[in-house]
Parts: sequence; C-alpha cells; structure tokens
Amino acid sequence: MAIIKNNNSVSHSKDGNTTGKVITCKAAVAWGPAQPLVVEEILVDPPQKMEVRIKILFTSICQTDLGVWLGKNEAQNVYPRIFGHEASGIVESVGEGVEDMKAGDHVVPIFNGECGDCVFCKSKTSNLCKKFRVDPLKNVMVNDGKTRFWTKQGEPIYHFLNTSTFSEYTVVDSANVVKIDPNAPLKTMTLLSCGVSTGLGAAWNTANVQEGSTVAVFGLGAVGLAVVEGARSRGASRIVGIDINSDKLSRGISMGVTDIINPLELHKPVHEEISEILEGGVDFSFECAGNLNVLREAFLSTHEGWGLTVLLGIHSAPKTLPIHPMELFCGRRIIGSVFGDFKGKTQLPQFAKQCMHGAVKLDEFITHELPFSEINQAFQLLIDGKSLRCILHL
Amino acid sequence: MAIIKNNNSVSHSKDGNTTGKVITCKAAVAWGPAQPLVVEEILVDPPQKMEVRIKILFTSICQTDLGVWLGKNEAQNVYPRIFGHEASGIVESVGEGVEDMKAGDHVVPIFNGECGDCVFCKSKTSNLCKKFRVDPLKNVMVNDGKTRFWTKQGEPIYHFLNTSTFSEYTVVDSANVVKIDPNAPLKTMTLLSCGVSTGLGAAWNTANVQEGSTVAVFGLGAVGLAVVEGARSRGASRIVGIDINSDKLSRGISMGVTDIINPLELHKPVHEEISEILEGGVDFSFECAGNLNVLREAFLSTHEGWGLTVLLGIHSAPKTLPIHPMELFCGRRIIGSVFGDFKGKTQLPQFAKQCMHGAVKLDEFITHELPFSEINQAFQLLIDGKSLRCILHL
Ligand SMILES: NC(=O)c1ccc[n+]([C@@H]2O[C@H](COP(=O)([O-])OP(=O)(O)OC[C@H]3O[C@@H](n4cnc5c(N)ncnc54)[C@H](O)[C@@H]3O)[C@@H](O)[C@H]2O)c1
Ligand SMILES: NC(=O)c1ccc[n+]([C@@H]2O[C@H](COP(=O)([O-])OP(=O)(O)OC[C@H]3O[C@@H](n4cnc5c(N)ncnc54)[C@H](O)[C@@H]3O)[C@@H](O)[C@H]2O)c1
Ligand SMILES: [Zn+2]
Ligand SMILES: [Zn+2]
Ligand SMILES: [Zn+2]
Ligand SMILES: [Zn+2]
Repeated sequence: MAIIKNNNSVSHSKDGNTTGKVITCKAAVAWGPAQPLVVEEILVDPPQKMEVRIKILFTSICQTDLGVWLGKNEAQNVYPRIFGHEASGIVESVGEGVEDMKAGDHVVPIFNGECGDCVFCKSKTSNLCKKFRVDPLKNVMVNDGKTRFWTKQGEPIYHFLNTSTFSEYTVVDSANVVKIDPNAPLKTMTLLSCGVSTGLGAAWNTANVQEGSTVAVFGLGAVGLAVVEGARSRGASRIVGIDINSDKLSRGISMGVTDIINPLELHKPVHEEISEILEGGVDFSFECAGNLNVLREAFLSTHEGWGLTVLLGIHSAPKTLPIHPMELFCGRRIIGSVFGDFKGKTQLPQFAKQCMHGAVKLDEFITHELPFSEINQAFQLLIDGKSLRCILHL
Repeated sequence: MAIIKNNNSVSHSKDGNTTGKVITCKAAVAWGPAQPLVVEEILVDPPQKMEVRIKILFTSICQTDLGVWLGKNEAQNVYPRIFGHEASGIVESVGEGVEDMKAGDHVVPIFNGECGDCVFCKSKTSNLCKKFRVDPLKNVMVNDGKTRFWTKQGEPIYHFLNTSTFSEYTVVDSANVVKIDPNAPLKTMTLLSCGVSTGLGAAWNTANVQEGSTVAVFGLGAVGLAVVEGARSRGASRIVGIDINSDKLSRGISMGVTDIINPLELHKPVHEEISEILEGGVDFSFECAGNLNVLREAFLSTHEGWGLTVLLGIHSAPKTLPIHPMELFCGRRIIGSVFGDFKGKTQLPQFAKQCMHGAVKLDEFITHELPFSEINQAFQLLIDGKSLRCILHL
C-alpha cells in the first residue's frame, strides 16, 4: 500500500524564496536493484523540526552506494530510493530548533550522525549515535517516520544512510550535517563526507598509527588510500599496499605506499609474503576491500602479540568472521571502524581546516569529474576500478 | 614406529641423590581419549640444558585438561601422554645453564612460558613467548624433540602444555617454571599455575576493569570466579554471574557476584536480560565456559560503543567466531586472553606475594582435596560441576 501525498495541500516555490515550500528539483532515483539510476524531477518537502534542507553542489560515489545499488543485502531493497552519502552543499533552509546552522552555510552531510545528547555522543570512546547511527535499513526521517522526497505522482521516495545526496536538494537531520569554514573549497570537502574521513580517521583515531609503525592496507580505493595518507602523515615506516588492480598499486606508490602486493601475481597467501618481508607481520592492517577472504588475510598479516586489524569494508550478511576463536589467543586483535571514529559534528570542522592547510592531499582522490546527469557513468567508473572518486557537479 | 629407550644406558637413583639420574616414580598416564588415567610407574629423565626437574607436591585439574582428556581436538590425540598443568612443587635438580633456580626452590610451573629473549618477551604488550607459548600439539621437549618420560617398557610418554604435572616428577623448560617465595603455602599456590591467574589477570591486565565498571562473567568455574574476584577487587559496581549450574551461582554470590542469571530458567536470550538490567549492557564480559553460543551471548551483552568481550574459554576447531563482521561496527570489541596476560616469570612472584597477603581469597577455590591416586575421581568432580578445584596430594 503506497502512501500517496496530497499535492494540493503543499505550497510550491514560485519566486526565489523556497523556505517553507516544497521544492521541485532533479534527483537520481533508484527504482530497483542494479537498474540505472533515473535522473528525474522530484518534490522535496521543507525541513521539519531539527532538520536541514541542503542544496547539494557536489556529490560522489562510494563503494557503499555501489553495494546497495547492486541490492547485495535483500533487507535493504526498498524502492524508489535516493542513494548517495558523499556530498557538500549550502543550507537552503533549516527546520524548527536548528540553531547551529542557517541558510547559506557551507555544509557537508555525514551518514554517521552526532545528536550530542545520547549516551554515546556523551562518551569519549565512541562515535556511534543512538539516534543517527548508520542503519542501512532506515529509509524515513525520525521525526515522523515519513520521507521528504516524493515522486511527481505523489509516491514516497525513500531515504538512504541518513543523507540521500544524489539530489539537487536533500533533507537531513541536523545531527547529520556539519557546518564547515565558508572558505573551504566545497568540491574537495565532498571527500570528507565519507571516504577520506573514514580512511584517515581509521589510521589516526581507530588504529592510532605511530611514527615507525608498520602498516598493510588491503584495497587501495579511496578509503584504502586515505588510510595510506593517514599512516604516511603519522610517520609509518612501512606501508604495504595490496590490490588486485595494478593501476591502484601504481597510484598507491605515488601516495606513500612503500611495498606493493598484487595477490593475483603472488604464488602464496598474502599474509605469508607480509610475514616474510616484515619479520612476523605488520603492526596494523586495514581491510578496505569488503571481502571476507581479504579480511582473513589482513588478520593473519599482523604481528602476533600486538597486531591490530581494522575492519572498514562492508560485508553482506549473514557470514560470520573468518577467524577461529582460538586464533584470538595469539594476541591479534580486530576492531571495526565507522567513519574513521570521527565524531562528525565535533571534529570535522577542525579536520576540514587541517585539509585546507594541506594536511591531506585531497586533490589526489579526485580522479574524475562529471555533470550530475552522468551519474550512471560515474557508477561504471567505480565498478571498473577506474576511479577513486568521480565528483558529480549539480 | 615407537622409539624404544635403551634402559641399560641410564643410571637409576639408588640412594637419596637423584641428580643426573633417571627417577622412577608414579604418574597418571592417559592411554586414550576419555579412558581413565592409569596411575603407574614411569621413568623420568634428568633435566637437559635449561630444563628443570620438579618434584610435584600438589596438582589440580583445569577444564583444559578435561577437554584434551576427552580428545575433543583430534589433532591432539597422541598417547600415552601425561596431562596436567596446574601444580606446585620443589625443584629436584636443574639442567645446564639454569641460573635462576636451584634444587630445593619452591616453584609453580606455567603452561605459558617466558624465555625472556624473544620479540614477544621483550615487548611490553604481549605475554606470548615465541619458544614456549601454548601449543596443544607440542608433546616433546624443544631441546632434542624427545620426551623425558618413558614407560617401564622404554616407550616414550608424551608431554602436554609445556608442563605435564600429573606426575610425581616432571621435567619442564626453565622458561615454564616460576620460583616463588619459600614461605608461600604451596598448596594454594597451585592455583596460580593456571585458573586463578588466568581469571584474575583477565580482569586486571586484559580488560583492566576499573572502579565502577560493570561486568558479566559467563561460566562460574574456577576461571570465571577468579574473574569475579579480579573485578570485585578493582571495585566493579555490578558483576553479573551467568551459569547453568545453580550451585555455581550460589558460590558466585558468596564471592562477589551482584546479579545472577541461570540461562536455563530465563525465557529470553541472556544478553537481552543484561541489556535491560544494565541499561544497554556491561562494560566487560568474559567467556569462561568454552561454548560458542555463550561467546555470542557474551559479545552481545556488552554495551555498544565501548563493550569489550574477553575470550577465555577453549573452543575446539574448526568453528569460526559467531560474530557477523558488520557487528564489529557497533563498537563492541573482542579479545583473547591467555594466562590472564601475565608475563609468568616476571610477574607471578609478585602476584604470589600479593596472594600471601590476602589480595585474593585463594582458599575459596579449593573445594576438594584427594590423594593423587584418586585423580579419576577428581576428573569426575569437575565433569559433574561439583568442584572448582580439587587439589591432589602427591
Ligand atoms: N566503515 C566505514 O565507515 C566505511 C566508509 C566508506 C566505505 N566503506 C567501505 O570500504 C570499502 C572500500 O570503499 P571504497 O569506496 O574505497 O571502494 P573502492 O571500490 O574504491 O575500493 C576497493 C578496492 O579494493 C580492491 N579490491 C577488490 N577486491 C580485492 C581483493 N580480493 N584483494 C585486494 N584488493 C581488492 C579494488 O580493486 C579497489 O581498488 C567498501 O567495502 C566500502 O563499502 C566503509
Ligand atoms: N585462556 C586461558 O588461558 C585459559 C586458562 C584456563 C582455562 N581456560 C578455559 O577456561 C574455561 C573455564 O575453565 P574452568 O577450569 O573454570 O572450567 P569449569 O568447568 O570449572 O567451569 C566452566 C563453567 O561454565 C559453566 N557452563 C557450562 N556451559 C555453560 C553455559 N551454556 N552457560 C553458562 N555457563 C556454562 C559450567 O557450569 C561451569 O561452572 C575452559 O574452557 C578452559 O579450557 C582458558
Ligand atoms: Zn561511504
Ligand atoms: Zn547521539
Ligand atoms: Zn588451565
Ligand atoms: Zn619468549
């Protein structure tokens, strides 16, 4: 039973001022698993209490979008839906109660929210948020359990990952929006929305890589290369990059990888090679490929006694960890990391400033740029392993 | 093909001085999986380079002995073999190069050795030892790959867990022997050999339980109750004890457990109950039952965002961790702990002193005492869930 919106009851924007009005704009709508996104006109409701409506200027595609687009997890298959979670833009209007942002502010949406009020937000040890945590099954707003997107026929279009950035306008809870320096270049700030923050934060916050640490990064996409960048900036002495795509390995070298391994060209398990070249294994390994076999190799690549594997990749249910319980007795540890353990609203503005001052070579992550209308081609570039991030201009 | 020892070439002890001679003594020999141990005369070779021959005075049975006795892991099925790894005794003689011990010293064997020299022993972060770590498959001495135990017919009897304490005399690498204060009561010091050090150390060293921490202990055998004791002594505010044996729950209460749960009498999963009574879960959970379903409950019983599950139980191959990779994204962590993360030779002498001064109520762990000849009855007491530790007098 579809909820049908009564279009008569809403006031559409006729003049320049859209505040409080429904906006008609273009969005890339997913209508079914693995079907090309349809760039079409949709209606976007005004933001409700504690919500923010953002005019998206740039968005990009992360492998997480690819996974849901392919419909890898049955349970997430809800259509029509607007994907996308890496973006930057300008606040169009804010809902009741929003005080830390106003129309015109430069912002970056974050899929891992920070309400500031829950037990996790108040704790120093976690960037989970009880209310706005990552929940791939969530597809409506918390305020009223409804969507803010509608087809022109008045059918609801579902939300994704608290963000839904593949749209000229999106409505997001203010807990999922970070205000950044108005002088920060919005295009590159898009990367802070997910991939770069995730990888860099995994090295800085989750693993806390130290000067002289040895590191192995499995999967050199944007996330993996951001780990490399994080490890490099901390002074890691060796950074082993592992990828089945040799272009990624070359790129890895230009970004600080010291040793490369292509599993397809190796005649033994990767962890054996790493154990040999690094006398027993690395201090830290990072799984950034989203593959359980890779996760096992990453785990075994760390040094017994103190090795830490950081899990970043998304793995579809219902598989269990490919680790025997007794293997935990050798002192290797494994930990998951979401959004690089950054508390988004608290820490991202500062991180954005660091990036403005060159702490991270953000430009290196942008391999392609396309108009929003060519979003399906941007998906293909990621599928083909050709792009790190393709920035879509809205 | 059995190695047959040439008995003519060895000098047996005729007078009181046994140094350098083969000793004939009683041991409880395992001849096959789940077969009653046979207390019989065996021959014990003199200690070789860096080895120590110990006159065992007390020994007790840990569930780990039970597991191998039952032959749970096919790969470990090597017979005849002498099990046992919790004990205390007096050095009978030492091999070439042993300088930190001499005949007459009071000692406790440890299954998790410390050579002092390897990469792990030199690191602060691990109590693994490259040379004398726990290896259930190891059944001979490292010096020459041979056993020091022989049947009277000259057949080798295999070692177990670097210790083999179910014998009046045993030969152990000096890395696996800890010299303790001669005034320490040897009987209770037996418990430091494994169970109590393991549980207490898991709370103190591995989890680092703090004043006010909340804790759940799954399985209230000697190991679990030692965790309770460790958590209590650190000032944990709540200690939930979980066991399917109600006698263990009663004992738990007398030792500091604040809340008890018998899963058999609960009409929902244990973790749901714990989440309710402790607002989201405990800070630390400990799996001390050796059961994968219990491990999953223990994992889910911790608070998202920061919960730490410490794995102590032994789980037979080849099962994998009952945790979905994505479940690591909620901020719960899991870690294995061997011998409570104590570095045995370095830290146990001090821990023994603390125990002498009442830091731990060691007596509470001794529920039964029997002569060595009744070792099979002691096994039965543990199987029946009646004993924590039954001390066998040799
Ligand atoms: N934890 C988080 O917060 C978070 C955030 C963003 C992305 N992710 C996940 O991180 C992973 C990486 O994302 P991305 O956007 O960088 O993806 P990407 O597609 O750009 O990169 C993945 C890389 O892994 C490589 N790869 C694939 N199979 C491999 C194998 N068997 N061995 C070695 N390398 C292999 C690919 O060649 C590619 O270079 C994805 O699973 C994504 O869903 C997690
Ligand atoms: N990691 C180490 O260094 C180390 C050292 C010693 C022992 N161990 C292991 O620790 C575990 C405990 O050893 P122990 O000597 O205390 O054993 P034990 O047999 O004395 O205690 C186990 C307890 O678990 C309870 N139990 C069994 N099934 C249960 C279930 N489904 N739910 C709740 N409780 C359950 C039993 O009733 C018993 O009280 C064993 O697996 C042992 O092999 C590990
Ligand atoms: Zn992403
Ligand atoms: Zn929150
Ligand atoms: Zn034991
Ligand atoms: Zn060592």
